[in-house]
Amino acid sequence: MIHVDPLPMPSLPTRRVALVIQYLGTHFYGWQRQANHQSVQQTIEDTLTQICGHTVVLHGAGRTDTGVHALAQVAHFDTHSPVPPDRWSKILNSYLPQDILIRQSVGVPSNWHARFSAVWRRYRYTIFTAAIPNLFVRDYSWHYYLHALDQELMHSALEPMLGEQNLSALQRAGSKRPHAWLTVQEAKCWRERDFVFMEMQASGFLYGMIRLLVGLLVEVGRSRLSVAEFTNIWQQQRRNDVKYAAPPQGLCLLGVGYDNSPFFKQEVANREVLTMIT
Amino acid sequence: MIHVDPLPMPSLPTRRVALVIQYLGTHFYGWQRQANHQSVQQTIEDTLTQICGHTVVLHGAGRTDTGVHALAQVAHFDTHSPVPPDRWSKILNSYLPQDILIRQSVGVPSNWHARFSAVWRRYRYTIFTAAIPNLFVRDYSWHYYLHALDQELMHSALEPMLGEQNLSALQRAGSKRPHAWLTVQEAKCWRERDFVFMEMQASGFLYGMIRLLVGLLVEVGRSRLSVAEFTNIWQQQRRNDVKYAAPPQGLCLLGVGYDNSPFFKQEVANREVLTMIT
Repeated sequence: MIHVDPLPMPSLPTRRVALVIQYLGTHFYGWQRQANHQSVQQTIEDTLTQICGHTVVLHGAGRTDTGVHALAQVAHFDTHSPVPPDRWSKILNSYLPQDILIRQSVGVPSNWHARFSAVWRRYRYTIFTAAIPNLFVRDYSWHYYLHALDQELMHSALEPMLGEQNLSALQRAGSKRPHAWLTVQEAKCWRERDFVFMEMQASGFLYGMIRLLVGLLVEVGRSRLSVAEFTNIWQQQRRNDVKYAAPPQGLCLLGVGYDNSPFFKQEVANREVLTMIT
Repeated sequence: MIHVDPLPMPSLPTRRVALVIQYLGTHFYGWQRQANHQSVQQTIEDTLTQICGHTVVLHGAGRTDTGVHALAQVAHFDTHSPVPPDRWSKILNSYLPQDILIRQSVGVPSNWHARFSAVWRRYRYTIFTAAIPNLFVRDYSWHYYLHALDQELMHSALEPMLGEQNLSALQRAGSKRPHAWLTVQEAKCWRERDFVFMEMQASGFLYGMIRLLVGLLVEVGRSRLSVAEFTNIWQQQRRNDVKYAAPPQGLCLLGVGYDNSPFFKQEVANREVLTMIT
């Protein structure tokens, strides 16, 4: 709509700014910019471009699908704007829609990269197992109630996944990733009353991986698939035996980790629980 | 819009149906029908009127303000419809907007009344005390972070309120209630990580009472008001010394109690916690 310079003005120094971004994914078409649909990346990029007066590209640590949430996504951008880096959070929050919140902004060195400098990402998947639906958790959980789930079986199925693995069985078609190797640093599954949670921290994640993993894991939880068979499927890269993806609204990107992190502690490395209404 | 009979058809028997209703109050102008604004009561009444083919009046157990939530509100209506009472929940849910959920419908005797038969109501107020806002709790809590809150002081201030009391100091102007006496059956305040909760169960509540109570209670929590002074204010009915109402989005009607309750247990008598994302 508005005219902006296609390139930064050469006379001003470039600064790299990193953002910690929280969003409710319900009303966005995921993180990544795409034609005709409003994404989180595009919403922030367009706002930055207007404020900076030059085109801004926002590099995220990872992509999230439509309906997936982020407690603390990380991204960076370069700008010639004289705005002090730590002021960006407040400025952006005054322009952004209410379902996006910049929790922190910091200046980072020009060789720091939100995606390539990241050493871990952490996701949580939430399953709501009560028989009657509940509006207060509807947009943040998978309502799975037709079969009882044994969270201890599910947890034991996760244990063999720790370490360096090829998880091509859990990669959705359409990935441009050259290989399916990654290091799983932590994986656990547990119950709290009507909720079953699955959390995983890894060096990286494949396209659609957590949702395919949870879709298969509930088969273990309802005892339709043994832990041994579950393990055989991913170890033998039997992609065709992974049929169901869990729905997106149960998934949340909890955080992204860096060596010598430029951010204050976001309290996402450990499990945090929202204690509210139900 | 559509024509409906103003009166029930005399040839069909009347049945009284009771509903347990959950709603997210964010996008409604409270429970009570009013001109020009969409309320929960009106939304359900209009749907029932269309389905029944005659005007339906919905009697709620209590009113909630704009932005206040309900885990389990109760209401009843009379109808000539031959629909079996326990089918109404499913039928209504297929028509109602997504922020209202009928959790149960049951047939009740013609002298049973959602409001007058109720022996208790229970409310919870949620305060979020972390310094940085959090989108996941924004619509369900009061973000109170400029002053630290001592939840034990707040709890001790609630204890003298137990029993039969005149709480006219905590009644908002505009009430049509003939007196301000009620019996407080339970009242407590406690902390869970960044959240401070206040829960109260009473025979009834005055107009705006919980929000005025919480507005005063945080003054105790931040040590600007002693427990003795707090107690003196309500015991001496010093209405002019109750100045602030806590914001509505922190408030939730947890449930309504009846002798020989016609409903299955809604699990609201005891504290239930939503364990989700934060």
